[in-house]
Amino acid sequence: MPIERSIPNPAFIHLFTEYLGLSAVEIDRLLEKFHVRTIAKRSFLVQAGEVNTHLAYVNKGCSRSFTMDSKGKEHVLFFGFEDWWLADYESLMTRKPGKQYVQAIEDLELLCIANEALETLCNVIPALRKWRQGKQLKMVISMIDRLIEVKSCTPEERILKMARSRPDIFQRVSMQDIASYLDIEPPSLSRIRRRMLEGERST
Amino acid sequence: MPIERSIPNPAFIHLFTEYLGLSAVEIDRLLEKFHVRTIAKRSFLVQAGEVNTHLAYVNKGCSRSFTMDSKGKEHVLFFGFEDWWLADYESLMTRKPGKQYVQAIEDLELLCIANEALETLCNVIPALRKWRQGKQLKMVISMIDRLIEVKSCTPEERILKMARSRPDIFQRVSMQDIASYLDIEPPSLSRIRRRMLEGERST
Repeated sequence: MPIERSIPNPAFIHLFTEYLGLSAVEIDRLLEKFHVRTIAKRSFLVQAGEVNTHLAYVNKGCSRSFTMDSKGKEHVLFFGFEDWWLADYESLMTRKPGKQYVQAIEDLELLCIANEALETLCNVIPALRKWRQGKQLKMVISMIDRLIEVKSCTPEERILKMARSRPDIFQRVSMQDIASYLDIEPPSLSRIRRRMLEGERST
Repeated sequence: MPIERSIPNPAFIHLFTEYLGLSAVEIDRLLEKFHVRTIAKRSFLVQAGEVNTHLAYVNKGCSRSFTMDSKGKEHVLFFGFEDWWLADYESLMTRKPGKQYVQAIEDLELLCIANEALETLCNVIPALRKWRQGKQLKMVISMIDRLIEVKSCTPEERILKMARSRPDIFQRVSMQDIASYLDIEPPSLSRIRRRMLEGERST
């Protein structure tokens, strides 16, 4: 069943109306391809070994994407918050089983669209195709940025960057997941964060 | 001055003729936008703080791309070999000063094209646009893969992956650069590599 215009949060509608300037007819064509999906906290949208076929817009809630190494240890790659798009992009694009798990860390309300349906729409709505290309470029940039961060930033720099770009993260995500994302041992993360907060209070 | 068809290595011509199926007229329009540039070993194609405007196809030689942290330590992000495309993509796409250095580690012969000229050509040659989009998708995938590797693979797994995908790398790139790329201390890299080679000889 297609989603009603009243369901998505305003940023979703704004993207297609104001930002991309789609016509009412085009927006209706697009919305009828989406469906709402809810994922309860701790459940999975995607699991390693599955082929990921859909893109999911986060209407509400947050998620973590992680891989598991050969010893079963989890490594958090990304978080997903409201107004983000979730997928295991490698699996989505190659149509092969993926390596990522995407798990709800708060109850998730998602607006999902099959990648194939979106591709078809991109062929007939040029503004949509341009947006999709732009998103891919931004992904390349943010991936390079993330790689640089993981390789060359000190723990303090990584924590500061995260706190600046996502001030609510420490309220919404567990210390363990943040530590894994930042590649910092949890006790060090707590210690550095405490020192940073004390520094803020004393200035 | 446009490049002659005789200069590029066959893979470059093959990409546009066989793989993309461009017409002779389209290939001539494309080649006239390229120019040859040589970079002597240890010199730079791009330096942090500069705005990167060109894409460079590696016709001969190899390069390393790295960033420098706040203490002046270098961190190798990528290597570039024959038939690869070099750029600081973040700077290229945002048109802002970049964070990367791209340095020749062997004398480089590059075929360079202004990103703007390529964009213009993509608007009139659909196959070229499709190729460019595909390249971006591949970059997203390889960036995610690289992130997963850096975060979750053991040193042995990282070395093995590199040796498999690029068997000539140990002959062409210094141990120090490979160690930085793999995030392994140089003595550990030498030790593990020696063990792996002994294992190969004994089987």
